[in-house]
Amino acid sequence: MSKRLGLQTIVFQQAPRIASCSTIAGPKEGEGNFGSYIDKLVDDPMMGQLTPEKAERMMLYLACQDALAKAALTEDDVHFFVGGDLLNQIISSSYCARDLGIPFLGIYGACSSIVEGLGLGSLIVDGDYADSVLVATSSHYQASERQFRYPVELNIQHRKSNQWTVTGAAAAVLSKSGTGPKITAATFGRVLDYGIKSPNDMGAAMAPAAADTLCRHFADTGKTPGDYDLILTGDLAAVGQKLFVQLVKEAGYTLGSKHMDVGASMYKPTQQVGAGGSGCACSAIGILGYVVKEMLQGNLRRVLAMATGALFSPVSTQQGDSIAGIAHAVVIEA
Amino acid sequence: MSKRLGLQTIVFQQAPRIASCSTIAGPKEGEGNFGSYIDKLVDDPMMGQLTPEKAERMMLYLACQDALAKAALTEDDVHFFVGGDLLNQIISSSYCARDLGIPFLGIYGACSSIVEGLGLGSLIVDGDYADSVLVATSSHYQASERQFRYPVELNIQHRKSNQWTVTGAAAAVLSKSGTGPKITAATFGRVLDYGIKSPNDMGAAMAPAAADTLCRHFADTGKTPGDYDLILTGDLAAVGQKLFVQLVKEAGYTLGSKHMDVGASMYKPTQQVGAGGSGCACSAIGILGYVVKEMLQGNLRRVLAMATGALFSPVSTQQGDSIAGIAHAVVIEA
Repeated sequence: MSKRLGLQTIVFQQAPRIASCSTIAGPKEGEGNFGSYIDKLVDDPMMGQLTPEKAERMMLYLACQDALAKAALTEDDVHFFVGGDLLNQIISSSYCARDLGIPFLGIYGACSSIVEGLGLGSLIVDGDYADSVLVATSSHYQASERQFRYPVELNIQHRKSNQWTVTGAAAAVLSKSGTGPKITAATFGRVLDYGIKSPNDMGAAMAPAAADTLCRHFADTGKTPGDYDLILTGDLAAVGQKLFVQLVKEAGYTLGSKHMDVGASMYKPTQQVGAGGSGCACSAIGILGYVVKEMLQGNLRRVLAMATGALFSPVSTQQGDSIAGIAHAVVIEA
Repeated sequence: MSKRLGLQTIVFQQAPRIASCSTIAGPKEGEGNFGSYIDKLVDDPMMGQLTPEKAERMMLYLACQDALAKAALTEDDVHFFVGGDLLNQIISSSYCARDLGIPFLGIYGACSSIVEGLGLGSLIVDGDYADSVLVATSSHYQASERQFRYPVELNIQHRKSNQWTVTGAAAAVLSKSGTGPKITAATFGRVLDYGIKSPNDMGAAMAPAAADTLCRHFADTGKTPGDYDLILTGDLAAVGQKLFVQLVKEAGYTLGSKHMDVGASMYKPTQQVGAGGSGCACSAIGILGYVVKEMLQGNLRRVLAMATGALFSPVSTQQGDSIAGIAHAVVIEA
């Protein structure tokens, strides 16, 4: 019997629980709007390491260990580690998988990775292929800047449309049983490309995919914005979220105060981050930090959590390719 | 009811069919030992494109289109595209997903990607989450050389332990119904690291993971080498396969003539490729070209197909990290 609804949505009949989650981030994120929702704030974004790549990896591993501990599980109890990150060859996740020793499914969806992972992990648990799955992702401002744009030391002037990669990591254990919030559905997205070519304007590149996935979700399920307490997008930030809201409106849905973009909300205006936050950890902290904690406190009941990814590399940009976008969504219910 | 067997193996109760597959490769692969098993051989590895990255992407798209056509399906009939490749941010797969318009699950397992994809795609079909899933991967000698090692134009001398990245792509449609070979089980691997640091010796870095996954598969299922007509590894090549066979022997299993490594067998000795072939397309052509065609001709009945990936990046190498390895396995039955 198919578990599909409409063109792109999957309904989980044995909806997996978010048994535990853990978030970690640096001082800039601590000073931002979600500081109180982050489990562990570190003073040193370099984590005492020589390179930002190694610092990112350490944050990811710590978040994974903390999520396991909170779920009272060891690595041997978890059947899959589903992880991905922004760094070339997803080295943060790969080396973390080595240190964890859990069978590894490496994924890449750029900043959409957390929801690709939560959706895939839910499918694996819902389908009885695992009792528990660990899902995690990470990003680091310095590691991302020097990989995608310029080394931080060059002190390049940011544009208003630039986004600031969140330094942090987040992990969740999905399980068959428990009392945490449930993941009840997933809408996996298509890749859309509206021809945006500037790596300094990723929000605009991702907005069409976010609008597409949201409209597909509504069409598949018959739901409307009124069915959700919150419709979260990951890191469209100030420029991208305006386009997103406009595209969704043109498709016949008014989101109003139901919508929040984590990237646009991550930092305070005084923090000078251009259009807002981005990176795998941005949406991951929004979902596994803010949404889950607000649910556990009874302030949110039903959330559509989307994360968006900009699919490109410095090589593709240099070769004249435009930046494609993707967005995945999961429904989280208290 | 759990569909797990032992620690790492999943048994597919509604074993998905390989409804169709397609392989494409360049002239060097055409002159090699698997030339007659490759569906489309092209004279120009650059595919008339200005860059090898764009050539790789075109090969991947052509393989996907051909697999869909052979299965008599359009993009709208396929519920997921599961794809990954070696290039930073898996741009070959991402842009191919854009051109296909099928909901996309991006994966990264380096050269193990085809089996990560076949295993994951089988799980999705077996679990009734999709009627059909398209799985594909690609690699390109020039694109890989200049990303991981040196631009081809530098004319760097290869060592004997170096491997030659296969230029090509392969795609398969997995479906609930049909008459093609079935994927009956999958063993997803852990990441192992024996401390190998040379990016010129990836076979040695991947061999421990291959041995680990094979031994786990045997332990989980109670099977032995005698239960299979062929035990295939992806791209350990000459150096890595010796270590693999030795490690497996130390664990109590003698493979003998049951074992074939695609990388070691891809090219002829006269082709001067160091230790042999590698790249995502190497194992993919071995599995979706050689194995599937031999099964359809009645020459193979039961194959354990493994693909191995070396998890590292030039950045991790420069920062002193060793190269971790992963291996995934699927059981394919006629």
